[in-house]
Order: sequence, then C-alpha cells, then structure tokens
Amino acid sequence: MGLHIGLCAPATAIDHELGASLEAIVKRDYPLLHLNIHPQCYANHGHFAGDDAARRDAFVSMANDPNIDIIWFAKGGYGSCRIAEEAAPLLTNAARQKIYIGYSDIGNMLSMLAKNKIGFPVHGPMPIDLSRVGGEAAVRRVLDWLSGSASIDAVLGRQFNEPLLPINLMTLSMLLGTNIMPDLSGHIVMVEDVGEYHYAIDRLFFHVIGNLKKMKAAGLMIGRFGAIPENDRAFGMDIEQMARYWCDKMDLPFLGHADMGHDVDNKIIPFAVALGDIERLIANKIS
Amino acid sequence: MGLHIGLCAPATAIDHELGASLEAIVKRDYPLLHLNIHPQCYANHGHFAGDDAARRDAFVSMANDPNIDIIWFAKGGYGSCRIAEEAAPLLTNAARQKIYIGYSDIGNMLSMLAKNKIGFPVHGPMPIDLSRVGGEAAVRRVLDWLSGSASIDAVLGRQFNEPLLPINLMTLSMLLGTNIMPDLSGHIVMVEDVGEYHYAIDRLFFHVIGNLKKMKAAGLMIGRFGAIPENDRAFGMDIEQMARYWCDKMDLPFLGHADMGHDVDNKIIPFAVALGDIERLIANKIS
Repeated sequence: MGLHIGLCAPATAIDHELGASLEAIVKRDYPLLHLNIHPQCYANHGHFAGDDAARRDAFVSMANDPNIDIIWFAKGGYGSCRIAEEAAPLLTNAARQKIYIGYSDIGNMLSMLAKNKIGFPVHGPMPIDLSRVGGEAAVRRVLDWLSGSASIDAVLGRQFNEPLLPINLMTLSMLLGTNIMPDLSGHIVMVEDVGEYHYAIDRLFFHVIGNLKKMKAAGLMIGRFGAIPENDRAFGMDIEQMARYWCDKMDLPFLGHADMGHDVDNKIIPFAVALGDIERLIANKIS
Repeated sequence: MGLHIGLCAPATAIDHELGASLEAIVKRDYPLLHLNIHPQCYANHGHFAGDDAARRDAFVSMANDPNIDIIWFAKGGYGSCRIAEEAAPLLTNAARQKIYIGYSDIGNMLSMLAKNKIGFPVHGPMPIDLSRVGGEAAVRRVLDWLSGSASIDAVLGRQFNEPLLPINLMTLSMLLGTNIMPDLSGHIVMVEDVGEYHYAIDRLFFHVIGNLKKMKAAGLMIGRFGAIPENDRAFGMDIEQMARYWCDKMDLPFLGHADMGHDVDNKIIPFAVALGDIERLIANKIS
C-alpha cells in the first residue's frame, strides 16, 4: 500500500542534512509515501555526485527495481548528459512503469526517457528545492500530488491538447542534435532559464527556435527567466520581445507565457506524455 | 595599387578613439593598405552597433563594393547571428572575391560565408584587439599579413592537408542545426573559449562533439580556454581531459592543441578555405 519513491542524483550531490529533512517531512505528513534515498545522492567525485559509473548505476538500479514507483531526481547542477545515453539500453520493463520527476539539468534524463518512450517523465520540483527560501512548498507540491491531494494549480497541463515539452532553455539547446533528443513534432515547448545574460538568451533563442521549427514543434511558450545579470549596457529587448522576434523570423508560433521557472514556484508539468496517463498510474499504484 | 580594407560591425560597436588609432597605424606604417571605416561601426542600438537592418546593410554594401578587397570585422560581442542568414542572398559577385577576417561572435559571419561558399573567410585578430593589453601586435599581425610581411608564425594552417574550422566553442554550439552552419565533413575543427565555467565547457563538448561526429568532421583540436571562472567546487578535469573524454565517447579523433584563443596571441587561420588560395588572392590584388 502506498507509493515508493526512490531518490538518485545523476548530476550533483545533496547533503545528509537535506536528505534527513525530506525524510522527516515524508514520515510525518505523508503516510502513503515511502522514501528510499540512494547513498549515491551523497557521493562526491569532483563536480559530480560520484563518477559516471556510480551515477549511472544508481539510476539504473532504481529504475529497474519493481518495488519503486517513482524516481525523484534529487538535484540538477550539471552531469546528467554524461550518463543518460548509456543508461537507456540498460533499462528493463520495470523502468517503463515508473514516473520520473525533475528539472534543470535533469532535462537530459527526461529527454532520454521521452526519446526512448520509457516511463512517464515529469518536469517538477526536486528535493534540492528544500534548500531555497520557500522551497518546502515546492517539495510538498510533489508529495501532495503523489498522495492525491494536490491543489488544482499545482499541475500544469490539463488545458492543453498538445503534448508539452517543459525544459530549461540552455539544457534544450545543448540537447539539439544529440542521441537523447526526443521527437518534438507537434509539441508545445516551454522554456525557462536562470542566470543568463540577455544577449546569451537571445543567442539561445537563435539556436533553439530555428531547430524547433525544423523539428515541427507546435510552438514556443516562455516560462520565467530569473536572475538575469546586468551587462555593461542595456540589451534593448525583454525576454518576450526576443522570443517573439525569433519566432517571427523562424516562423514558429509564439504561444505566450507558461507558469514554469527555475524557482520554487515551479509546477508539475508532464514531459512529452499525457497527464491523464500519469495520474491514472498514480491512482492505480497508491490504491 | 594596394589593398582596400573595409570595416563594418555586424555585432557590437567600436568607439571613435579606437577607429582613429587604427587609422593612424595604417597611415603611418602600411603604405600599401587603405582603410575605410563604415560609420555603422560607431552606431548604437541597445546592445548592438545599429539595428539589424543597419548592420546588415553596412556589411552587404561593403561586401558588394568592387573597390573593397578585404572586409575586416571591427568587433564581436554578439549580434551577427541576427543578420547573417538574411545577408547571404543579398551578396553579389564582388563579394566572392573578398577576404573576410574576424573571430568570436563573427564566427557566425564566417560560417554563413563558408556555408554559401562566398569569398575567403579567415579567423584572425580584429580592430577591437587594440583595446586589449598587447593588442596592437595582434592587429599588426593582420596588417603585416595583408601587406605581405607577416612573420612565418603569424599564420596557422600551412601544416594541414585538411580544411580547418577555427571557431569559438559557444558560437559553434549555437550554430549547430541552423541555416548558416557550413558542411564540416573532413574538416579539422579548432575551438577556443573565454569566461565559461568548466561544467559549461564540458556541456558544450557534449553538444558539439557528438554533432561533429555526425557531420563527419576529421577531428577536434583545442585552442586556449581563457578566464575560466572559479566554481564553488573543483570540476576535477582540465580542458584537455574533457575534450578527450567526449571525443572518446563520441568516437571523434582528438588531434591535440591549436595555437588559437580568444586573446591577443590569436593567429591568422583560414576558415574552411585553402590558405594558398587566400595568399594568392592577396598577392594578385596588392601587385
């Protein structure tokens, strides 16, 4: 009875204090949820949460474990692209019945899963959000959703007929042309970013929007772009103006703003899969 | 008699003081060279040296001017990708007889020219280098080369049989899959960068090296990677280790180090064209 959540970290590590905080919240307030934190989440190898083999193996073993229902990626930060492609052929049938939740650098894992049509990837808050101001609400948004008690606005996606592709703009940019890039035809692509200069965002739009057009995406929505550094001169266009400029130039529909960002207000958004399928899976598993 | 050099700025502006310094150097020491600075080089429109139309038109008018032999791009800084694709169909036969020199963001212009097989693009120092410590030597490297008096080590490329593609790594990354990306089959790709974190460089290698393999590039050489910011923890690999890691993984030959960088030691390197063809063109024009 209940849902078993497994934590692993394909990019960078969390610390034990954060892991303990999450365990305490789940134990106290979510009787239907059971948490299993892979020790690899606490490993360190240079920049990464363990070397490539350790990160890949932790992910693969949890994804293939039939007693785990949800893979909750602990943290982004860079590193998933080093293990995603190699992990794909190692995944077994048990991996296909699972939900995978994360954002930021974890977009690489979600993309690899979507590309290979494995399981149900979801763009949503991660345990690391506990370390941000207001982040407990973000983490609870996921826990509430998994226990069937999420508020209606915790989830984005009910109003769309097209499949959605919510992703960090830089992560998407670096995925283009790689072996873990999913088919985006007919998808509404939602992008956000944090800490990039205006000119760098404009350059990313140049790269991404032309490629989205070639992939026959249905259109672009922009999420929040946070913590934009100040340059030595004003760029002269805001994010929406840049997005419209490039969508115009590349003849891709600009579809407005999406409620997603690299922040604690992040919503739960299905990633190239149907929301209804995910929610039915959760309802079946938890009962 | 002599060579006519035209300056335009497809990205960001230079100031009048820098233009005057360059004019003084040429007038005093290079009797065979004649400088023509387009007033657009001094224009400002938000981030850019004039709006897109002004930058595109300045470039196109100079490229199509039969009395100009060399287009020397004044400065990079971001913006060329906004005008390169539109400029291509506006270029006439006069543009095919020209040499085009620049680096950094100007990689977009060089790529557009190479993609459309127009003229002779060259990766080399730009007038803006005058504003850097030691930059006059960089600028004189170009002026010496154009007047036929360059030192033997000012030019890189004589020792290679394959065509070369020397470019800023971020610029190349953003070009992938766009309409101004040249054919790289059989090319040795040389990359440099400045001001990027180790993890960002590793991420760029992920994106670029896999795509280079698909484009059947001959291999990768690394130039200098300058001003790498310090992160909150050590990455654990240096640039060569990262390049080797991704070349290994993607099965692209790693061909060692190239003497190029985002700095005043930059050499003159042919961009997807044969050095001999360029130097014959200069010799013909100047005599």
